[in-house]
Amino acid sequence: MTRIGILGCGRIGQVHARTLRGMDDVTIVAVSDFFAHAAETLAAACHAEVRSTNDIITSDDIDAIVVGTPTDTHFDIIKAAALAGKAIFCEKPVDMSADNIRALITWVEQAGIAFFTAFNRRFDPNFANVQRRIAAGEIGNVEIVTILSRDPSPPPIDYITSSGGIFRDMMIHDFDMARFLLGEEPVTVYAVGSALVDPKIGKAGDVDTAAVTLTTGSGKICQISNSRRATYGYDQRIEVHGADGMLRAANVLENTVDVATGDGFRTAPTMNFFLERYETAYRNEMRAFVAHFSDRTIPIPNIQDGLHAQILADAAAQSLESGLPVNV
Amino acid sequence: MTRIGILGCGRIGQVHARTLRGMDDVTIVAVSDFFAHAAETLAAACHAEVRSTNDIITSDDIDAIVVGTPTDTHFDIIKAAALAGKAIFCEKPVDMSADNIRALITWVEQAGIAFFTAFNRRFDPNFANVQRRIAAGEIGNVEIVTILSRDPSPPPIDYITSSGGIFRDMMIHDFDMARFLLGEEPVTVYAVGSALVDPKIGKAGDVDTAAVTLTTGSGKICQISNSRRATYGYDQRIEVHGADGMLRAANVLENTVDVATGDGFRTAPTMNFFLERYETAYRNEMRAFVAHFSDRTIPIPNIQDGLHAQILADAAAQSLESGLPVNV
Amino acid sequence: MTRIGILGCGRIGQVHARTLRGMDDVTIVAVSDFFAHAAETLAAACHAEVRSTNDIITSDDIDAIVVGTPTDTHFDIIKAAALAGKAIFCEKPVDMSADNIRALITWVEQAGIAFFTAFNRRFDPNFANVQRRIAAGEIGNVEIVTILSRDPSPPPIDYITSSGGIFRDMMIHDFDMARFLLGEEPVTVYAVGSALVDPKIGKAGDVDTAAVTLTTGSGKICQISNSRRATYGYDQRIEVHGADGMLRAANVLENTVDVATGDGFRTAPTMNFFLERYETAYRNEMRAFVAHFSDRTIPIPNIQDGLHAQILADAAAQSLESGLPVNV
Amino acid sequence: MTRIGILGCGRIGQVHARTLRGMDDVTIVAVSDFFAHAAETLAAACHAEVRSTNDIITSDDIDAIVVGTPTDTHFDIIKAAALAGKAIFCEKPVDMSADNIRALITWVEQAGIAFFTAFNRRFDPNFANVQRRIAAGEIGNVEIVTILSRDPSPPPIDYITSSGGIFRDMMIHDFDMARFLLGEEPVTVYAVGSALVDPKIGKAGDVDTAAVTLTTGSGKICQISNSRRATYGYDQRIEVHGADGMLRAANVLENTVDVATGDGFRTAPTMNFFLERYETAYRNEMRAFVAHFSDRTIPIPNIQDGLHAQILADAAAQSLESGLPVNV
Repeated sequence: MTRIGILGCGRIGQVHARTLRGMDDVTIVAVSDFFAHAAETLAAACHAEVRSTNDIITSDDIDAIVVGTPTDTHFDIIKAAALAGKAIFCEKPVDMSADNIRALITWVEQAGIAFFTAFNRRFDPNFANVQRRIAAGEIGNVEIVTILSRDPSPPPIDYITSSGGIFRDMMIHDFDMARFLLGEEPVTVYAVGSALVDPKIGKAGDVDTAAVTLTTGSGKICQISNSRRATYGYDQRIEVHGADGMLRAANVLENTVDVATGDGFRTAPTMNFFLERYETAYRNEMRAFVAHFSDRTIPIPNIQDGLHAQILADAAAQSLESGLPVNV
Repeated sequence: MTRIGILGCGRIGQVHARTLRGMDDVTIVAVSDFFAHAAETLAAACHAEVRSTNDIITSDDIDAIVVGTPTDTHFDIIKAAALAGKAIFCEKPVDMSADNIRALITWVEQAGIAFFTAFNRRFDPNFANVQRRIAAGEIGNVEIVTILSRDPSPPPIDYITSSGGIFRDMMIHDFDMARFLLGEEPVTVYAVGSALVDPKIGKAGDVDTAAVTLTTGSGKICQISNSRRATYGYDQRIEVHGADGMLRAANVLENTVDVATGDGFRTAPTMNFFLERYETAYRNEMRAFVAHFSDRTIPIPNIQDGLHAQILADAAAQSLESGLPVNV
Repeated sequence: MTRIGILGCGRIGQVHARTLRGMDDVTIVAVSDFFAHAAETLAAACHAEVRSTNDIITSDDIDAIVVGTPTDTHFDIIKAAALAGKAIFCEKPVDMSADNIRALITWVEQAGIAFFTAFNRRFDPNFANVQRRIAAGEIGNVEIVTILSRDPSPPPIDYITSSGGIFRDMMIHDFDMARFLLGEEPVTVYAVGSALVDPKIGKAGDVDTAAVTLTTGSGKICQISNSRRATYGYDQRIEVHGADGMLRAANVLENTVDVATGDGFRTAPTMNFFLERYETAYRNEMRAFVAHFSDRTIPIPNIQDGLHAQILADAAAQSLESGLPVNV
Repeated sequence: MTRIGILGCGRIGQVHARTLRGMDDVTIVAVSDFFAHAAETLAAACHAEVRSTNDIITSDDIDAIVVGTPTDTHFDIIKAAALAGKAIFCEKPVDMSADNIRALITWVEQAGIAFFTAFNRRFDPNFANVQRRIAAGEIGNVEIVTILSRDPSPPPIDYITSSGGIFRDMMIHDFDMARFLLGEEPVTVYAVGSALVDPKIGKAGDVDTAAVTLTTGSGKICQISNSRRATYGYDQRIEVHGADGMLRAANVLENTVDVATGDGFRTAPTMNFFLERYETAYRNEMRAFVAHFSDRTIPIPNIQDGLHAQILADAAAQSLESGLPVNV
């Protein structure tokens, strides 16, 4: 029985709690949150205790923590948890600063703990299927990766200003996906971007429409594009062109129905909300983490993956500012 | 809190138990099965007691029973449960004999209990979406309904011989779907069929490939075709042609990936196993049943729906034998 | 150089003339039409002469005739042309009476001429592809054929009354397609039908919504459905379920564009007009006919195919009237 | 009657000749080619004369010339034809040197002649449909354009070395398409590229896999990717993300058939050969050019469009060499 403590009882903490409750070999021992009410509600639903974050990190009756607190709390939590020898499941990004992540890597490695960076999209059945088939050689050498991500609508300006910018907040997922699919580290990053969706985002110093080009040492190319708004829903597609063929994951639609009228054939829209769209991915990533306790596999993506994605996001931000490609 | 007893702890009983466990306002009090081990295993997973079927039916601490036992036990169980005033969730078919179902209707109506016939496909999100939009008038008057169902592979011959035949065992779902989509009772039934998949099925007195034509009083037409085998998986499609357009539910594929090679673009296969294909439908039908206890809605499909589907199946079997259309 | 005479300069005669003009080894020598103006216009476009129908049939400088005149003129034209030893390309139906066609078969066989019945859909690249792959064994033994045909809108009532009814006028194409795909003659025919699109069609003694079930000697099944109206355009689909897989030809859309909005993803409508939808088929069927003159292949479909389709149409009409299946 | 002279009787000259022969208001007066046999063959097929290129340019009985000769002959031909007052239909690229094109613009403008740059893809029904709907405002302000082009297989190395490189030879089409869809001039160009398909292409100083990012003055973004090889055929897709929706043109497949087996549902491959894939586009572009003579419309794309695409190709080549974005 793996004993879990959940730090942060917000939306994502609740998602993970639900997955954990459905597992036979796991128990949620305790939860914590800055807001007492949030912690109490989740504790009741999970038949768990409310404890302080610190107590959870140092409790003897807890094997692993799930970190769903705000990003600026991650550093201290991870350091303390590593010292306490807890396995860590950490929401992305690990930290806004690559240097901080480097420091944490030292602590994590010294402690020899399992550290899982929750890039959930790797566990989407569609994207995972693409990667598995690439790895199995189905399309030969990967040559061009194309990633298109659009959110249904922009977050509030308040969120934007503290988000670290579109590359660190939104495209970070695509940077990890690029690494996952390329099977090789990018060496150059070039970014362009504009505030086309909402001029207030531009005034806040960010962009809402962005595109990045990555190249790897062996000459593979990845193109990513993001928009903070898509009237047609949550648009999440990847495609990989290889020497022997092309693999492509289309959007997940709300249902398989289409209607025919004089205007053509109309399908359902895409699943619109990320918690719903990636429901299976959230479940699968937690299973991948928890598997560590039964089979001692090292969970992937790990903290190094968290660092690499952050480095790409930093480079993209720097490229956008300078107008020049950045070597990484 | 609705208190449930589960009769029958086989594959389908386990599916319903899993759904019920995930509900906040429901508790599984007891389970029963002819095989003690099956009952004990499910009881442990549900924190429920093992009782005899009879005890469950007559227990004061149980509000509703879920009937997942073999079809030939349904009659006695339903009669007893109606007398005991229990709400009933019953797997299809209610009974192999339409006359028996008519008798049960009398008991159920006298008892004034809720009776749910588990035609799960009505609760598939795709098929439900089609029906909702028909009811909302999106395609005007329904004129032609086309239903195509193919199983991945035929069941064992032992199963075939006790199944009641393809119309009562397999096409029964499509008869219910036809009624659901036509919004009107069929008045003629014409069936053809052959044993093309396996001559042993023919020797057992059944067919494995069958097609039925239904007409309604107002002249609507429904065409159904079934095969006991489809090399490409579990094929489940409907399409409804109306005065103002056409609605269509395609198959559910395993994922959204396609691969391009010199042979063309290849998608994933259909979900292959009915428990997986209709996972959401099973969840949704149980929710529809349980909703009765909070909002006093009369669950649909009810026992009359169970009877009507059986009448169509009987008529199809009679038509196949006589080679003539049958009026119902 | 094959020398052609065109009888009938209406819409379909013009289509065939255009195809013939684009061929290197063919010359259109003469054309005829009941309306002098129509004949003169087409003659001018083709650099051909206007002659009387009789003159064309008996001209020494003509090898083959293309019959695009009204159906009730076919009998006399075919008989005379057979006597004159001309090869014949004849629009469907050959004649409204199966007995008349039987009589013509005698004349045609005695004359030893090539006779092509213009069931154009066999030459649609999509449907032809399906048939070719069936013949190559790609899906094993054919078990269930499903044919769905809907016209965009019903013809004028005047047309309906002289059309011979939906089975002889519209479904005749599907009967030929069924034979083409089944690879075996149907032995039973059961038809149902209603006037749902326009009650005036019902008053005229016809139906506008119809479904037919065919069975063959070996137990193959074919389901056909027709509607005289589809708001979403000209709907023409086939699907063939076989022992080893399923082949399916989807509609031809106006273009490959889709648009994504909050309502979903919307494609173009189907090609709406039969001359446009089957443009390639019309070209290909004429090439198949003309190939006879270079390589002496016997053109298929021939007059026997014309007869068989007519027999099925007659049987369907009889079944609709009697309410009973008809053996053929 | 518009009188045409065709310069260059190779593959593309033959395509245009076939289109012109099918037009009622056009006559092909004369053709020329470096190879006498090629000229004679096409002349015979067109009932036209063979003349020298110079004679055609200066003939009084010719209104317009179609230039399908090698690119390095374009400059002299265009200059002479402009002086002679002929309308010009010119295959892309107008010239390998942007400065040369600028010089030609002076001559063309002084002569006041119609000049059509044959960017055929603008006339593909699918891509044209996308552009028309953008222009009609269907998706609001254009924000991100994605263009994916892959050739079935690389040309011979001989061709590569004299092609001007992938940007001027292959991606030039996509640069024009980008301008067509963006509705605004790009201001920055960033290119990456590798020789992944064939190392010999790399040794020849070119790349076979390339990606370009364009930005416009108002902040619109375009991503283009090219490969010289796609095992799955000729891959030609565009997609345009706008403020109010997304428009997308998918590949043109060989037919509408799919086959279902245990491996999934497999469609036909893409049309594999550019002459076949863009058959309609070739016809439509010639009609657009010839329309000038009946309605005096100025043909678009014109020589300025030819220049702008060349400038983008030059900038991309320069960017690839320097590793830096280039302002245009």
